[in-house]
Amino acid sequence: MPKPSTIDRGAAAGDLERMLRPGQVSTDAAVLDEYAQDDAEWADFTPPVAVVFAETADDVAAVVRYAGASGLSVVPRGAGTGLSGGANALVDSIVLSLERMTRIVEVNRAERYVRAEPGVINDVLREAVAEHGLWYPPDPASYKISTIGGNAATNAGGICCVKYGVTRDYVLGLTVVLADGSIVELGRRTAKGVTGYDLTALMVGSEGTLGIIVELTLKLLPLAGREERAVVGTFGSLEAAGEAVAAISAAGIVPSALEIIDRTCIEAVEAWQHLGLPQGADTLLLAKVDDVGARGDELVASVAARMAEAGALGVERATDPDEVDRLFLARRLAYPSLERLGPVLTEDICVPRGAVPEMLGRIRATAAEHDVVIANIAHAGDGNLHPLIIAPEGDDAAKARAKIAFDRIVDDCRALGGTVTGEHGVGLLKLPGARSELGERVLGMHRAIKDALDPHGVLNPGKAFPA
Amino acid sequence: MPKPSTIDRGAAAGDLERMLRPGQVSTDAAVLDEYAQDDAEWADFTPPVAVVFAETADDVAAVVRYAGASGLSVVPRGAGTGLSGGANALVDSIVLSLERMTRIVEVNRAERYVRAEPGVINDVLREAVAEHGLWYPPDPASYKISTIGGNAATNAGGICCVKYGVTRDYVLGLTVVLADGSIVELGRRTAKGVTGYDLTALMVGSEGTLGIIVELTLKLLPLAGREERAVVGTFGSLEAAGEAVAAISAAGIVPSALEIIDRTCIEAVEAWQHLGLPQGADTLLLAKVDDVGARGDELVASVAARMAEAGALGVERATDPDEVDRLFLARRLAYPSLERLGPVLTEDICVPRGAVPEMLGRIRATAAEHDVVIANIAHAGDGNLHPLIIAPEGDDAAKARAKIAFDRIVDDCRALGGTVTGEHGVGLLKLPGARSELGERVLGMHRAIKDALDPHGVLNPGKAFPA
Repeated sequence: MPKPSTIDRGAAAGDLERMLRPGQVSTDAAVLDEYAQDDAEWADFTPPVAVVFAETADDVAAVVRYAGASGLSVVPRGAGTGLSGGANALVDSIVLSLERMTRIVEVNRAERYVRAEPGVINDVLREAVAEHGLWYPPDPASYKISTIGGNAATNAGGICCVKYGVTRDYVLGLTVVLADGSIVELGRRTAKGVTGYDLTALMVGSEGTLGIIVELTLKLLPLAGREERAVVGTFGSLEAAGEAVAAISAAGIVPSALEIIDRTCIEAVEAWQHLGLPQGADTLLLAKVDDVGARGDELVASVAARMAEAGALGVERATDPDEVDRLFLARRLAYPSLERLGPVLTEDICVPRGAVPEMLGRIRATAAEHDVVIANIAHAGDGNLHPLIIAPEGDDAAKARAKIAFDRIVDDCRALGGTVTGEHGVGLLKLPGARSELGERVLGMHRAIKDALDPHGVLNPGKAFPA
Repeated sequence: MPKPSTIDRGAAAGDLERMLRPGQVSTDAAVLDEYAQDDAEWADFTPPVAVVFAETADDVAAVVRYAGASGLSVVPRGAGTGLSGGANALVDSIVLSLERMTRIVEVNRAERYVRAEPGVINDVLREAVAEHGLWYPPDPASYKISTIGGNAATNAGGICCVKYGVTRDYVLGLTVVLADGSIVELGRRTAKGVTGYDLTALMVGSEGTLGIIVELTLKLLPLAGREERAVVGTFGSLEAAGEAVAAISAAGIVPSALEIIDRTCIEAVEAWQHLGLPQGADTLLLAKVDDVGARGDELVASVAARMAEAGALGVERATDPDEVDRLFLARRLAYPSLERLGPVLTEDICVPRGAVPEMLGRIRATAAEHDVVIANIAHAGDGNLHPLIIAPEGDDAAKARAKIAFDRIVDDCRALGGTVTGEHGVGLLKLPGARSELGERVLGMHRAIKDALDPHGVLNPGKAFPA
C-alpha cells in the first residue's frame, strides 16, 4: 500500500506556477487525467499534483529541486507512448512533460551527429537529418509519435534493430538534470572515447530514475548506400514462420527487418483497412534486405529460399519502394487495428532466435488454455515477441484471465533463456518479471546505484526495477 | 603521497597460498617485478604483495574477499598489454592475473554469440569463432597478445572501429565478481533486452574498479559477406593526409579502416624491416573497404579520388588478400618498430574527424617547440590519434620535455572538442586529463557509484577516474 499523501496539492501547484512562466503549469482535471498515464492501459496510476510543461533545462532543474525540497517526486514524460507504465504518475508526483523542448540544436554532417532536445519526435529528427544526407536508424513502431528523449529513457528498439541495433547504440552523449537539480554533460561528440565510466549508457534505459535527459547527441549513419528490398512469406502456422526465422538466422543472413504478424492481426487489419492480404493466411513473415546491388539480390533469394523450405504457402518479393511500403503496411497497422478490439495488454519478451518457434507454440497453447485472445506481432529476427492479449472492454473475467496468461508467457520466456522486456522497459508492468530475472544481488546493485545518485528518491521512484 | 604500508607481506602471501592450490601464488621477486606494471612504461607502479594466478571464478572471489578483510587491494590483470597503467600495482595490492582462465565455454552459431573466460587471447577467440562462420570484430593493435577480459575492462578499440564499433558494442553479458566477493551475472544472451540498468555497459571500460570479469558473452557477426579491398595514399605532409580523412568522412564514406602513419613511423619500420615503402613519403594513409561487389569497387574509387584531390603523391589499390595484408603490414609494425628507439609515451586522444588536420599540425608544432620526437599513428577515420613521444633511454631532460609535450597535446585536443582517451583508458596516465574533461559534478557521480559498489576500495583503487 502506498502511504497516504500529506502534500497540500493546491499549495504545491501555486509554488510551481510562481516559479515558472504562464501556461507552464496545469492542474486542470482533464489534463491531470490525460497525463496521469502512458499507453500501458493496464498499469496503475494516480492523478499527479500538477503537470509541468518544461521549456528549458533550467525549468527541469527548478522543478526537480522544488520536488526534492517538498517531498514530491518527478515523473518525466515524453509523448506518453510508453507501453510499460514508466511514465505513469504515482502518489505525490509532478508529471514533467518535455514535449515543448523540441529544438534541433545542431546537425553536424562531417561528424555525423545531431544534437536535439528531448521533445523532438523521432520522425521529425529523421526528416531533419535526412536533409543533410544522414540517417538515424532506431525506428520504434511509435516513431511518428514518440519523442527521442523517451526513446533514450527506455532504450527503445524497433524494426531495423535486427541489423542496426537499438537506441543506446546511437546515443553518444546526454545533458542530464540530476536528482539535486544540477545539470551535467555526459559522454562525448567524438567517434570514440573511454574517459571514465559510461554514464551515458547507464542513463539510457534507466527510465528517468537516475536523471532527466534535457539534450541528446545522437550518432548518425550516411543515408546513402542502402537499397531496400522486401520479401513476404505466407505461412500456414505461426510455428512454420518461426522455423523460417530460425533458418534465416542460422544461415548467417542479417536482414534489415524480419517481422511476424499472425492471423489475429491480419484479420484485424483486414476488418479495418481491407488491404487485400492473402486469403487464408495464418501468418505473414515480412523481411527486408538493404544491401545494395548483386549482394542484395543474393540475400533476398536466400531469404526467399529459407521461407520456401520452411513450408511457406507463398513468397512475394518487392524492390519498388512503394511496393515495399505496401507489403509492410499490414505490420504498421497491426497495433492500431488490434486496439480497436479492446484494451491491449502488450507483452515484450525476447527469447533466443532459435527458440522463436517453441515460444510461439507456447503462446498459442497459453491462449487456448486460458481462453484469451492473443495476437502476435514479433521482431522475429531478434527473438523479440509482442504477444498482445486482448480483453473486451468491461469484461473483468477476461481481464483476470489475461493477467494470468501474461505471467505465464513471462515464465515460459524465462524458461527458454529469454528476458522479460526486449525493448519496452520495465516500467510498472514488468516489475515482478524483473525481480525474477535480475535476482537479489543484481537488484542490490540497482538499489545501491539509485541511492547513490538519487538518495531521496525524487526521480520517477518505483519504476525500472523492483524496490 | 600514498600512505605507508602496514601490511605484513609475508603473512598475506602465506594466507593466499593456503587458500589456493600449489603454483597459484608467486612472491618471487622477478615475478613481482614483471607483474607490477602493464605496457605503460611511464606510469607509476610498486611491486605487489603477491601475484595470484586465478583459475576459476571462485578463486577470484576468494582473493577479493581476502583482500577486503585484510586491507589489501586487488589489481586485476589480463595480458598486461594496457598502455595507461590501469593494471599497475600500487601500494598494498595483490595482482590478480586472469591469464589462466582461457576456456571458450560456448560458441553459439544460431544465436551468434560466444561465451569465454577473460584470459582468452583476442586472436584465439577470433580463430575459434571463425571455425563456426562467425566474426568478432573488435581488433585492438594488440589483438594477438591481449585478452578479451582486458579488452572489455578497458573498452578496447582498434582498427575496424570506424565501421564496426568498439568492444562495448559486442559485450552482451558478463559474469562479474563484485567487491564483496559475490558473483553476479549481468546482461543477457538474447539479441535485445532492457531489464533494469545497463550494468554490463557500466562494467565495460571501468578498468576493474567496479568488478572483476570472470566470463563474457560476446555478440558476433557472420563471417561471410565482406570483401576486403585496400587503398593506400602517399602524402607529402601529415596535414594533407588529414585533409583526405576529413574529405572521406564528409563524403559519407564509411571505410572498414582508415589509418595514418607518418614519416617517423615509416622510417622506423624501414630501418628495421626494409619493406620497401615509398621513398620520400612523409605520410601514408591506409584505407580498407569491405563492402562486396560493385558497391565495394565504387567506394574504393571514391576513397582513391578523395586522396588524389587532397594532393596524394601516389595512390595504390589492392584486392588480393595477401596484397592487402602487405599494404597494412607497415601499420602493424609501426609500434614495435618505434619501441626499438626508446621508451614510448603513448598518447590516445580522440578529436572530431574534421579537426584531424588541425590537431596533426598542432602535434607537429609541439614536437618542434619542445624538441621531442613524436611519431604519429592514427585511427584517423575515428579522429583517434596516437602521437607517440619517444625519449632515448636514460635521457632525463628529453623525458621531462616529453611529459610537457604530452600535457600540451591533451590540452590542444580538449580545445578542439576532443576527449583525452579514445580507446586506451584513463588508467593512471590520463587521471589529470580525465579530471579536466569530466569536471567536478561528473566526477562526483563516479565517486558515488564507486562507493556504492566498492565501499572499501578493494577493486583497483586509484584507477579510471581521479579520486
